[in-house]
Amino acid sequence: MDQLLTPTELAVAGERMHRLIADVYPICRSITGDGIRQTLRRLREQVPLEIHEVPTGTQVFDWTVPMEWNIRDAWVKNSADEKVIDFRRSNLHVVNYSVPVRRKMSLAELREHLHTLPDRPDWVPYRTSYYQENWGFCLAANELARLQEGEYEVCIDSTLEHGSLTYGEYYLPGRRTDEVLLSCHACHPSLCNDNLSGVALVATIAELLSNVTLEYSYRFLFIPGTIGSIAWLAQNELQASRIRHGLVVACIGDSGKFHYKRSRRGNAEIDRAVVHALKYSGEEFEVRDFSPYGYDERQFCSPGFNLAVGSLTRTPHGQFPEYHTSADNLDFVAPQALAGSLAIYLSVLRILDNNACFHNLNPKCEPQLGTRGLYRALGGMADAGQFEMAMLWVLNLSDGDHSLLDIAERADLPFNLILRSAQTLADQQLLGRVSPTAI
Amino acid sequence: MDQLLTPTELAVAGERMHRLIADVYPICRSITGDGIRQTLRRLREQVPLEIHEVPTGTQVFDWTVPMEWNIRDAWVKNSADEKVIDFRRSNLHVVNYSVPVRRKMSLAELREHLHTLPDRPDWVPYRTSYYQENWGFCLAANELARLQEGEYEVCIDSTLEHGSLTYGEYYLPGRRTDEVLLSCHACHPSLCNDNLSGVALVATIAELLSNVTLEYSYRFLFIPGTIGSIAWLAQNELQASRIRHGLVVACIGDSGKFHYKRSRRGNAEIDRAVVHALKYSGEEFEVRDFSPYGYDERQFCSPGFNLAVGSLTRTPHGQFPEYHTSADNLDFVAPQALAGSLAIYLSVLRILDNNACFHNLNPKCEPQLGTRGLYRALGGMADAGQFEMAMLWVLNLSDGDHSLLDIAERADLPFNLILRSAQTLADQQLLGRVSPTAI
Amino acid sequence: MDQLLTPTELAVAGERMHRLIADVYPICRSITGDGIRQTLRRLREQVPLEIHEVPTGTQVFDWTVPMEWNIRDAWVKNSADEKVIDFRRSNLHVVNYSVPVRRKMSLAELREHLHTLPDRPDWVPYRTSYYQENWGFCLAANELARLQEGEYEVCIDSTLEHGSLTYGEYYLPGRRTDEVLLSCHACHPSLCNDNLSGVALVATIAELLSNVTLEYSYRFLFIPGTIGSIAWLAQNELQASRIRHGLVVACIGDSGKFHYKRSRRGNAEIDRAVVHALKYSGEEFEVRDFSPYGYDERQFCSPGFNLAVGSLTRTPHGQFPEYHTSADNLDFVAPQALAGSLAIYLSVLRILDNNACFHNLNPKCEPQLGTRGLYRALGGMADAGQFEMAMLWVLNLSDGDHSLLDIAERADLPFNLILRSAQTLADQQLLGRVSPTAI
Repeated sequence: MDQLLTPTELAVAGERMHRLIADVYPICRSITGDGIRQTLRRLREQVPLEIHEVPTGTQVFDWTVPMEWNIRDAWVKNSADEKVIDFRRSNLHVVNYSVPVRRKMSLAELREHLHTLPDRPDWVPYRTSYYQENWGFCLAANELARLQEGEYEVCIDSTLEHGSLTYGEYYLPGRRTDEVLLSCHACHPSLCNDNLSGVALVATIAELLSNVTLEYSYRFLFIPGTIGSIAWLAQNELQASRIRHGLVVACIGDSGKFHYKRSRRGNAEIDRAVVHALKYSGEEFEVRDFSPYGYDERQFCSPGFNLAVGSLTRTPHGQFPEYHTSADNLDFVAPQALAGSLAIYLSVLRILDNNACFHNLNPKCEPQLGTRGLYRALGGMADAGQFEMAMLWVLNLSDGDHSLLDIAERADLPFNLILRSAQTLADQQLLGRVSPTAI
Repeated sequence: MDQLLTPTELAVAGERMHRLIADVYPICRSITGDGIRQTLRRLREQVPLEIHEVPTGTQVFDWTVPMEWNIRDAWVKNSADEKVIDFRRSNLHVVNYSVPVRRKMSLAELREHLHTLPDRPDWVPYRTSYYQENWGFCLAANELARLQEGEYEVCIDSTLEHGSLTYGEYYLPGRRTDEVLLSCHACHPSLCNDNLSGVALVATIAELLSNVTLEYSYRFLFIPGTIGSIAWLAQNELQASRIRHGLVVACIGDSGKFHYKRSRRGNAEIDRAVVHALKYSGEEFEVRDFSPYGYDERQFCSPGFNLAVGSLTRTPHGQFPEYHTSADNLDFVAPQALAGSLAIYLSVLRILDNNACFHNLNPKCEPQLGTRGLYRALGGMADAGQFEMAMLWVLNLSDGDHSLLDIAERADLPFNLILRSAQTLADQQLLGRVSPTAI
Repeated sequence: MDQLLTPTELAVAGERMHRLIADVYPICRSITGDGIRQTLRRLREQVPLEIHEVPTGTQVFDWTVPMEWNIRDAWVKNSADEKVIDFRRSNLHVVNYSVPVRRKMSLAELREHLHTLPDRPDWVPYRTSYYQENWGFCLAANELARLQEGEYEVCIDSTLEHGSLTYGEYYLPGRRTDEVLLSCHACHPSLCNDNLSGVALVATIAELLSNVTLEYSYRFLFIPGTIGSIAWLAQNELQASRIRHGLVVACIGDSGKFHYKRSRRGNAEIDRAVVHALKYSGEEFEVRDFSPYGYDERQFCSPGFNLAVGSLTRTPHGQFPEYHTSADNLDFVAPQALAGSLAIYLSVLRILDNNACFHNLNPKCEPQLGTRGLYRALGGMADAGQFEMAMLWVLNLSDGDHSLLDIAERADLPFNLILRSAQTLADQQLLGRVSPTAI
């Protein structure tokens, strides 16, 4: 994996990701059902992913795959037979996983099932009730205020039946069977930054890497949150043990600064690679320690797996006002932000894929770089050039124990420069690569 | 050990400690003799402690138990037969361990044996000469200034004879034979913060814990400084090896902020427990590294023992002007301050006694807390509750290697909350306790 | 090694070093040839060093000892037969290692071989071309500006022939065969701070230590930069393995603050000893991490050797404007600065030579210092004296694992005080020295 994208290629990719988001934005996704299936089918136009079905009732560790939920329509009508809440206008109006209901009731009774955001009176919240049978509607606080006393008719035309949980998976083999994992959740309905930005980014990376020679094998997961990662881990324990580095991808399309949440291990290679890439990116960023709340890193980092999986987002979940509301819409995610996120992800993967330990084959004193045309001939100037410094660092620290990333960190030089200088020295037979199995 | 005291109970305990201090304040204590015996007898009204006698001449490591010192009276009279210095007004007036003397002398000769504090001309200093035969008087600099030339008669009616060193000890057995040590010095005469505040606090804790089921066994020592801890260690080497955590208690009744002096080990569990308790107490505090000067932690932390013993005080010894002067009196220690110190000590002991490692019995992915009624049913909100967060942290880090204190530190949550969430999860068979011998 | 120098002795030594620098300043040194030979002969007046010759063509690791270079004269004449550049006025005028040349040429052609410093138009730069055949002249930019169009005659009367590389070495045996290395480069022509200040300092230390009983053996190297240290290491691999601590000495005569560059190991005893000495010196200083650019620490710290060798300078190479120019002259180095540098080096060596681990022979509780006359008799004062504190620290940490330097660091007390207190305690049979081979 060698080439990164040019600014123009990045801009094109950003626009394309935004179009993908727009395509699947209207679909009513949930943790099961036709919404996620339809979304995965759209992704297959770009990535040849496999679509897996895990039947309702399957035991996955402490959990059970739930009934499959589907919904055709839902509304609330007032006594004048006007639809005052209408699923067709926004799928956020229905509490996700609502059981079917068709009944008349007073406003007082209805109100028990209505959810609003008093602080953001124009926005519709997103609510779910996956694991407890319930039904409800979400609406803007201003809409609720306009409802008059009287009788209302409620209809949720949903089904909750034996079926399956659906997820998408794409495996890209590299030279090693060791894996890099990129995982995103694809279970939220019309929410753009939270879920669709991650889906679009992972699909785009999968597409790009499929044209490249890779050191690691790469696995891309498009799964329902929590239950999806639990199901995947339960059914792929052996495969999971091959994951060396991983990232949970989400909230990557807003214009906020980057936030990296470390893996449970705290200083794994993935943690250091992300921090290094961000440091040299020119982007603003913040690094946070692991905590057991968030997205599917909760499962990948559970103590029985303890995988080196972090999460790289822009504004983290729950920390932008639009989070889990109707305001997380197509305007909230920008092609430019998606392109910038893609650039960072690619530099992280480039570090992981190229990181290696070398042996200085001439470890006693420096080799004579000048006779090999690698060092300026005229002496006496105060400074070495940056490339000369990078070669000296690589030679000095290539004792088999320091990886290129270790060297870049200690030299305070970009990985890219260290990598190029190591390649130059290896071409001159001054460095020998330590086989990865020996690490 | 579960319950802490209510604010009212603490206030009552503060008043009671102050009364105990007032009771024993007039007694002329020293490192041997009837003063400390009388003090220990008063403590037995609250705590069933054993009183030990170590005979004069007993070799205790590099030291020898000295002659027992007792004093009946002492004074200096001027030529008009007026007592210008009188032991009966304050036992600080006599240099502790002064040999008997009865003689007339000039003011010039007397002056060689007089000690004052020129910077604090109204205060009487406290001076000792335990290990070199000497005699002397301490008085206010202003009193000294008033002494006229002329002949003085000096009387110190003391005895220095074969006898013994006396200390008090109370052992409270818990489930384990591993011990927590609380040690205080009880060898200073009329000084309240330095010595009596510690004595009152240790006695009160001993009393409170005797009504509670304890994990550790607890040992409470009321000893003369230096020679007392050396004697105890010399005669209890095997027992000392059972001490897992310990605190030297002193200067705990003034109104200054808390100071914790770490054990020689620097980051032992006692060190971390005290810092954690202080951090969540709302009290001001400062943490200092170990140094080999201070109270009996000098002996407990000598390299041949290196016990995990720190010292938690308010203003440390030597750092308040009243230290070792007549101004360290009943007004200098306050019931409220004593009560606040008791609260901190109890929370430290509660952490120690409840700290444990657990195994997450469902370590692969999170268990489904919702079906167990431990997680809210409606999803979509931005934050988890604090108790939910505590449970997630406990589950995530309970891999057998992290104690509850480790988890509290990493989660940045109070130990108490982590403990309650661990108890809840254990009740649900989601956690199993790692046996302490397995640690 | 016990005594340091008095201020007067230091001042005398500073003047003497400056005179030595003045004596050898006019000599045209290079990495081979008679210049360095003549310099080493002058040093033998003070230090009985051995002069080694390594023949041209000798393979030393990846390098080959080059042809020996000597120069008799060099000049450029204008068409009026006036010498516009003259080696006899300053040996910096010729690019070091220039091949012989005698030819007429236009100013345009000549200009290709001229080097100036446009930013410092009055200064002559120092340039070399050791490993690529070339010739050239260096001159002040202002001089270049005055050259008129026309024909010039160029003469460099140099030789580049089979011969040898020359270096000086002085070995001073101590009680142990383990060594301390002091190495300086002596290959620069008329440059005072860069090369001669180091030469003078190392010679002076060698002289001083030869009159003293030493724990370590000491090795002093006066070598040509890069190729000299590579040649020495190649021919003394076994000896190199005995080097426990080392310093590369250079740029020690200017009036800038001290800079210590750590060894590649980063926290070796030499690194800690230098930082400790600087901290208690009252001098301004800065500590920098190792980097593989600089002087011969590059070779000593190459991964195949990884010796604990740092570099203690005043202003580091390349960071003063006079560096590698004619302004690095006799005025740029001051006797006082040289004396101050000598003082620091001696305190570093004193720490190294006296550092040791001890066993507290009375490790259980404190020994009774008072009965040994080591502790004041009258008790009750707030503070211990500094010497008493030092003794308590030494006793507390002398468990065989802590060296005196470890203790000084943790106690935050000067090494000197810790050393004296350890000696006092050892005299009292309270401490036993841990044999160095046991470490």
